[in-house]
Amino acid sequence: MKIGIHSFASLEQPENNSADHRHQTIKNLLDRIHLSDEYGLDFYGIGEHHRREYLDSAAHNILSAASSITKNIILKSSVAVLSAADPVRLFQNYATLDLLSKGRVQMVVGRASFRESFPLFGLSFDDYNELFEEKLDLLLKIRDNTAVTWSGKFRPSLSGQEVHPRPYQQKIPIWIGVGGTPQSVVRAAKLGLPLMIAIIGGETHRFRPLCDLYRQTWIDSGFKEEDIQIGVHSLGFVGTDGDKARESFFHGYKKSFTKIGLERGWGPVTRQSYDFLVSETGALVVGDPSEVVEKIKAHSNSLGGITQFAFQMSVAELAHQQLSDSIKLIGDKVIPLLKS
Amino acid sequence: MKIGIHSFASLEQPENNSADHRHQTIKNLLDRIHLSDEYGLDFYGIGEHHRREYLDSAAHNILSAASSITKNIILKSSVAVLSAADPVRLFQNYATLDLLSKGRVQMVVGRASFRESFPLFGLSFDDYNELFEEKLDLLLKIRDNTAVTWSGKFRPSLSGQEVHPRPYQQKIPIWIGVGGTPQSVVRAAKLGLPLMIAIIGGETHRFRPLCDLYRQTWIDSGFKEEDIQIGVHSLGFVGTDGDKARESFFHGYKKSFTKIGLERGWGPVTRQSYDFLVSETGALVVGDPSEVVEKIKAHSNSLGGITQFAFQMSVAELAHQQLSDSIKLIGDKVIPLLKS
Repeated sequence: MKIGIHSFASLEQPENNSADHRHQTIKNLLDRIHLSDEYGLDFYGIGEHHRREYLDSAAHNILSAASSITKNIILKSSVAVLSAADPVRLFQNYATLDLLSKGRVQMVVGRASFRESFPLFGLSFDDYNELFEEKLDLLLKIRDNTAVTWSGKFRPSLSGQEVHPRPYQQKIPIWIGVGGTPQSVVRAAKLGLPLMIAIIGGETHRFRPLCDLYRQTWIDSGFKEEDIQIGVHSLGFVGTDGDKARESFFHGYKKSFTKIGLERGWGPVTRQSYDFLVSETGALVVGDPSEVVEKIKAHSNSLGGITQFAFQMSVAELAHQQLSDSIKLIGDKVIPLLKS
Repeated sequence: MKIGIHSFASLEQPENNSADHRHQTIKNLLDRIHLSDEYGLDFYGIGEHHRREYLDSAAHNILSAASSITKNIILKSSVAVLSAADPVRLFQNYATLDLLSKGRVQMVVGRASFRESFPLFGLSFDDYNELFEEKLDLLLKIRDNTAVTWSGKFRPSLSGQEVHPRPYQQKIPIWIGVGGTPQSVVRAAKLGLPLMIAIIGGETHRFRPLCDLYRQTWIDSGFKEEDIQIGVHSLGFVGTDGDKARESFFHGYKKSFTKIGLERGWGPVTRQSYDFLVSETGALVVGDPSEVVEKIKAHSNSLGGITQFAFQMSVAELAHQQLSDSIKLIGDKVIPLLKS
């Protein structure tokens, strides 16, 4: 199982939008990617947002900066909001990163979780699914062919134009990021694309039917069972002391998710709901290294086996030092324990 | 006067489009940006192309990778093809780079020299000027305001949306790159934007009327004379021996410009035409350090004074080592001689 980080470039102090704080936030993020590479984590992914508290509307630039100071770690979009992107530009960004990093790119593409990218690029939510379907089709064509002839509804046609540069890898791996929609899972399986499931609340085992649907559709589509790749992205954090880690994560988690909840119509976060999420079957993977390892194993079993696990630690306003210490524990303890 | 490099990410061997060669080309380019920073050059810019022999369709990614391995050098788009870009995405790319580099970004934006970007993004050459004008208007609005209300012909409207991240600098300097069109020069002056003139052939002094038009329009528009900034981008190369430098530059120059000439209807390059271009009044700045310094001074005088000079060395298939040696000479000899 591959273990890594999915992060947002969230402002460390969301209320502080000074130039120096923005710079320091992004510099600390780069330090943590460098650290993750040093400590042997398998991948580091950055998400995409178009709002004040985040600096990652152009995540490919941050990953490109990271490519110069890392050697082995896979650099990922997690996720790139494909629905709002031009697949030609998106491919060019990640192909360039692939050349810069000598083939260390994976892309996870999705439909967007926050909604602000749609009006910013003149898109309508009525086209939410159709946009993604069409753009994925074009992105895969560009990945698989240098010269592309294509026409669609949301982007000018291509009539044999070549898209450059070509990446280092023959085919950049493209994963589909999903939040729980069966239709998305079926689409990924039919195309033979690996699946990254974001499980950010509730109980992880409830995603078992979704994984089974993916596996069955994959096999029914004529792909080999041994090629199935399912990744899980969970909110998580590791500390030397499990109780302290859960306590540290709680405060920022409560703040972030209460705020997001206001936008999306969820209730506020309570200590009780949090305690449930960090308990045995809950989705949050927070604790000391051995607790976290047990939980990842249990989650994997409950889902029928996963091949990739991503810690999403950047939603709880944790300090750079806390995040760095967590990365060191993942490299020094969690990964060796999982492999033993 | 600020001295630096404008480069393309041209394949070192244009016929070799293997993954390893693409990676090596981009790695060598990064090494030269690092070297330019070490040797005290003022800026390093990368152009934008969408064709097989170039790896710079997403130049912001290359510059982002460079930001991690440089300390002082200004990182530039030279030019970004604004006509074919979405100003929102373009700004996001360079704002992110500005945060990564702690305020070392300048943008030069232009209308495109090669034409392949137009059909790739569904644009028509009939709109060549109108596209640029509209997109420049939006780009400046985004630079100068976090929240933008705007509508135009070539991009969906914005109704008060914020564009993030905001850069490190309060206003990223935006230069207008021109090839010799008076209309472009007038537009830049009226907007109070600095001017970068690409002089890649003929005699440099013939651009004097264009510079005067810019200065007069600038002053007529109510801007201060002392704020005028005019940069010149010339094909150039420096070697310890002037004759050898001119010889080295000739072969690749002939090859590149004969090829481009075929597309654009120029005649083939001859030794005679080249000798004229590297002679006293010709546009090419190739020679030993003292020759090059004299030529830059003479060019500047002939144009009424310039504030920035960019060597464009990547059009002559010179080897990485030759380009690196030239950068060292620019830092060690040309810049000190120009300042003395």
